[in-house]
Amino acid sequence: MSDRLSAQIAFLKEADQLKSVLRASRLLDDSRRENSAEHSWHIMLYALVLADQAGPDVSIDRVLRMLLIHDLVEIDAGDAPIHGEVDHAAMAAKEAAAAERLFGLLPADQGAAFRALWDEFEAAETPDAVFAKCIDRLQTPIANLANGGGTWTQFGVSMPDLDLRVGRPIGRGAPGIWAWLRPQLTAFFERAAKG
Amino acid sequence: MSDRLSAQIAFLKEADQLKSVLRASRLLDDSRRENSAEHSWHIMLYALVLADQAGPDVSIDRVLRMLLIHDLVEIDAGDAPIHGEVDHAAMAAKEAAAAERLFGLLPADQGAAFRALWDEFEAAETPDAVFAKCIDRLQTPIANLANGGGTWTQFGVSMPDLDLRVGRPIGRGAPGIWAWLRPQLTAFFERAAKG
Repeated sequence: MSDRLSAQIAFLKEADQLKSVLRASRLLDDSRRENSAEHSWHIMLYALVLADQAGPDVSIDRVLRMLLIHDLVEIDAGDAPIHGEVDHAAMAAKEAAAAERLFGLLPADQGAAFRALWDEFEAAETPDAVFAKCIDRLQTPIANLANGGGTWTQFGVSMPDLDLRVGRPIGRGAPGIWAWLRPQLTAFFERAAKG
Repeated sequence: MSDRLSAQIAFLKEADQLKSVLRASRLLDDSRRENSAEHSWHIMLYALVLADQAGPDVSIDRVLRMLLIHDLVEIDAGDAPIHGEVDHAAMAAKEAAAAERLFGLLPADQGAAFRALWDEFEAAETPDAVFAKCIDRLQTPIANLANGGGTWTQFGVSMPDLDLRVGRPIGRGAPGIWAWLRPQLTAFFERAAKG
């Protein structure tokens, strides 16, 4: 038991580093960039609050567990901004190696369970994973609307880009949220085009 | 539905401020103070990983939900360091007012459910709340052991202080963890006493 606990605490100490992985997105008050640990906390709150937007076959408790661990691989692989230019195959390989190392710190049974949950999230096929991916895409547009454009301005993003990269996953997981959000996004980009 | 969603998103935007509430505790690499949002994420990971230390009547999913929302009141009330001098009655009143305002931003049914969960956590009586409180106390000692004393040095904390403020809640929720941790703490304070 003591060895098991020591391995678990070693993993939890390693996880502390996620607080130092910076995302492109900024806090709502524009004071600084957001890190992946606090982002993970925030989207779990999004998932719990917006649970009534999920389909009937979604388990919010499983979604919360997925979101809790979904970014841990960034400790080794870093964060790939959604609107940045990324070699997706290379990134996937880096993330798989990170999952191997990080979940490998845990006792074998637990490491395998965490890895299976992370693989399910990444594959984005089950109802739980589809809703989790939807929620993961939602927080940054809300922040960008609040702070004058944020990463959209930085990466020169247009409404067609958003329809593809944000609208598709959000609409797939929670069509009601996308129907509510999209008019606000088009209004923002129309205002921005008028300068 | 649209009004409900707008209220939910307003709450989620307000919650962003938890990323700017600083705790006394520091990151494991001692680079900066920790904020309450990333702390909340980290202790949820602690709860999930250490679930096998909880009693058989503990629901880890309910514990995760409690830990997700447990620090939101700090947006208005600030963080009270466990080893600092605090007027507990005044702090409890500030936190209750914060809960009223923040959970009051949500649709009424949801606000009431979140408030009931937070009240349960604060009361620390149910098995879920007892385990959640135990986990909330565990992360800082692990960080302090890793970074040479941290808040113990800052606040002049002794082993009897720790037995009372940390040992009691941890031992109540997970005696196996306290039996594993306490010898490490006593060894640390013995080394520190020798200078």
